[in-house]
Amino acid sequence: MSEFLPRYARVRASLIERLASGEWAPGTSLPSEIALAAEMEVSQGTVRKAMDSLVADGALNRVQGRGTFVAEQTPELANFRFLRIVDGDGQRVIPELLSWTAKTEPADDRIAQDLSLKKRADLHRIDRIRAIDGTPALLETIRVPLGVMPGLGQPDAMPNALYPWYQSEHGVTVLRTDDRLRAVAADADAATALSVPAGTPLLECVRVAYDLTDRAVEHRISHILTNAHAFSVRLG
Amino acid sequence: MSEFLPRYARVRASLIERLASGEWAPGTSLPSEIALAAEMEVSQGTVRKAMDSLVADGALNRVQGRGTFVAEQTPELANFRFLRIVDGDGQRVIPELLSWTAKTEPADDRIAQDLSLKKRADLHRIDRIRAIDGTPALLETIRVPLGVMPGLGQPDAMPNALYPWYQSEHGVTVLRTDDRLRAVAADADAATALSVPAGTPLLECVRVAYDLTDRAVEHRISHILTNAHAFSVRLG
Repeated sequence: MSEFLPRYARVRASLIERLASGEWAPGTSLPSEIALAAEMEVSQGTVRKAMDSLVADGALNRVQGRGTFVAEQTPELANFRFLRIVDGDGQRVIPELLSWTAKTEPADDRIAQDLSLKKRADLHRIDRIRAIDGTPALLETIRVPLGVMPGLGQPDAMPNALYPWYQSEHGVTVLRTDDRLRAVAADADAATALSVPAGTPLLECVRVAYDLTDRAVEHRISHILTNAHAFSVRLG
Repeated sequence: MSEFLPRYARVRASLIERLASGEWAPGTSLPSEIALAAEMEVSQGTVRKAMDSLVADGALNRVQGRGTFVAEQTPELANFRFLRIVDGDGQRVIPELLSWTAKTEPADDRIAQDLSLKKRADLHRIDRIRAIDGTPALLETIRVPLGVMPGLGQPDAMPNALYPWYQSEHGVTVLRTDDRLRAVAADADAATALSVPAGTPLLECVRVAYDLTDRAVEHRISHILTNAHAFSVRLG
């Protein structure tokens, strides 16, 4: 770790290492600021500043009078933070899983670059179709490096919300996502999956998800039918 | 102001009132925490907490050793915070203004609802086309309530970045935006403006922008050609 980082940043990096190692499990409480300060031989203020930054990043939650907890990803929270589909009235909707397949494949050059992997690195690949109000509306291709979730393999069942499952079953906590949104014309595969004519405008979302340590842990291409829905974003 | 708000929230609301009134102009420094605490008869910690929340919201900037300043919107900052168009390599691009027209019109029901206005309230309307790398890529229809910027009228010139202009010329500071993104087929007008065939998939962004006081100050419909570009969003 660089000696040139401010002290709180070094404390932060050390806390991240311990969170990523699983020393503190999701939902459990961290030792007190005083205990951590003594253990790490820094001031309580430095520990607090490091924790503040992890609270701001969503890695920790503070509960007034009860302490600081490792943030646990629930399906509701994951949908709230990372999926922003709303209906015509601006009300949030949660898509339901219709069908899925899973396999492994080597990364092509583009995916390898987006995930900072070496070329042809092994990936888990999940293809799924999700519906909104009973109508197929999302076609998703999800790729996870084998090295990131070696235990993913051929799952028996597929949860609707993946990030809570990554955390509880595979020890990987998604903290932020970078999305690139474009409008594209449905190709033959997307048209079939979503039961629309080829050429129908679809919202394409190419996402890379990052964990606590800023490692790229998932690549996801979504094609979303937005006739009745929109992708909602708040900036500022 | 409600008596039931926590004290820092009341201090925050009072600071927002004074910012919105123009008492402290963009770029100028606020009185010290000690001076504000004395004036408002609260503790310095309460003032700091209120200021912290305004820094987090982007309304104030803290400069180490120099004090706290009213955030000033520069074209660079506005483009960075509120416009997220990137090229194929993820590099940010800034569109340039190609053409524009301005007029006034009454709000239709939908716009009135989005802007929390009464039906048929008077609006300034600006239509403009912007280009990326010389190619028309954004068709935008911008609507601002006359009551929000009475001085906007028929502008002689149109800046490329509107939010810095709203702030410097019209005393309105945009602090956040809510966008709804969809994929749509280009209609005849959009096709002509962007020199593409009718039916070309376009990224539609319907935005409402809010000021310091959470007042809706602008409605904007953008149609964006995303063949070579994408709208970039970071969540988490």
